[in-house]
Amino acid sequence: MELDLYFTPLQIQDELSLKDKTVIVVDVLRASTTISTALKNGARVIIPTASVENAVKYASTLEPGSFLLCGERGGKIIDGFDLGNSPLEYTEEKVKGKTLIYASTNGSVAITKTKYARYSIIGSFVNVSTVVKFAKENSDDILILCSGKFNRFCLEDAVCAGMIAFMLTKGKPKKKLKLSDSVTAAIKLYKFYGRNLLKMLQESEHGRFLTELGFEDDLKVCAEVDSIPVLPIYSDGVIKAV
Amino acid sequence: MELDLYFTPLQIQDELSLKDKTVIVVDVLRASTTISTALKNGARVIIPTASVENAVKYASTLEPGSFLLCGERGGKIIDGFDLGNSPLEYTEEKVKGKTLIYASTNGSVAITKTKYARYSIIGSFVNVSTVVKFAKENSDDILILCSGKFNRFCLEDAVCAGMIAFMLTKGKPKKKLKLSDSVTAAIKLYKFYGRNLLKMLQESEHGRFLTELGFEDDLKVCAEVDSIPVLPIYSDGVIKAV
Repeated sequence: MELDLYFTPLQIQDELSLKDKTVIVVDVLRASTTISTALKNGARVIIPTASVENAVKYASTLEPGSFLLCGERGGKIIDGFDLGNSPLEYTEEKVKGKTLIYASTNGSVAITKTKYARYSIIGSFVNVSTVVKFAKENSDDILILCSGKFNRFCLEDAVCAGMIAFMLTKGKPKKKLKLSDSVTAAIKLYKFYGRNLLKMLQESEHGRFLTELGFEDDLKVCAEVDSIPVLPIYSDGVIKAV
Repeated sequence: MELDLYFTPLQIQDELSLKDKTVIVVDVLRASTTISTALKNGARVIIPTASVENAVKYASTLEPGSFLLCGERGGKIIDGFDLGNSPLEYTEEKVKGKTLIYASTNGSVAITKTKYARYSIIGSFVNVSTVVKFAKENSDDILILCSGKFNRFCLEDAVCAGMIAFMLTKGKPKKKLKLSDSVTAAIKLYKFYGRNLLKMLQESEHGRFLTELGFEDDLKVCAEVDSIPVLPIYSDGVIKAV
């Protein structure tokens, strides 16, 4: 198995280089968690866009009432949009049967960069086992891609990526693996922080920021391992549960 | 004190943003270590260049016999150059009084990206205390910049950066610091690997690569904490010991 890990999407200098890979896109706070929540609650499809402008433009092509405009800038709902980026907003009542056009600052951008990947899966703590099972069964060339924040390293994405890497490599003979430094480091960080994920989220830069904005309950949702066992796959521009 | 840490030079999207900062450039294997060695052994100045072409062009402006062309590609000496990138090559006999034009694959590139910094210091395990002392006394806005490898994360640079961050923040009240995630993660990695730096170097991707090329003795030199207490500062295009 080939396994690599990028701490920020900046490292994707050539999107076509992903064409034979299964990419697992991680944005724990909050895109990956929110996408899983929305799909569990019956959203038809989610269309990630790399900018607010693209989201609005895309919406203009759809039938009114069939879609919701979703996303955040600076952690807060975008003016005129229907939903922000808190997973708690994506209830069955609101999203069932809808198309969600989704523009988050980091996760959406990272996801759209994986459009040429063989498979692009959206992963976080809430669906980690489901994601790992699929990746193990369907690929031997895997890249774990942390969304980070404005192309900066994010602890929560690194720890989740380390958990995924740990689960993917568990039981394999260590000498044969020859892990990349980023995989090795992320697994170490997971082993250190894995005992108390909520505390790690609370202490992370982005967790502190969200807490200041009043989203401290989101952190609890995002820390719940395997609470939402869905498999969001991004293909042909849309994310669906498979 | 403001303190930040980049795991790869990719994160410098705007070189002018460094103008008020003291940047500590870390390339443990091997640029930072080799530069310290060369200066300890009497090299007059070191001129880092971002490409082999630039090195050759620069050399054509100097008096023959006054300089040495130094650097590597793929870990090996560049054809027609005088010295490669092993610190063991930079003996007093070879470098004393000379101008070294220096083109390594990652370290040189990272260093040239810091040309607008208030101070740019070259740091590694061999001069860590000297670098930390200077940074503490001369700046309250510090960026630790890992050179990485081809814009990828390198464990040895992250661990050394974590050691520097640990030493810079030691004794300061934890609550006031509000460390960035990259600083927090690097300190954790240093605490894990700091007990046996040589083993960490031997297990790192780049350490394994250098060992395959026959440079295993370089790892021992690079792991020796405070063995070369010089302070290489990059200013106006040249590195000098201050």
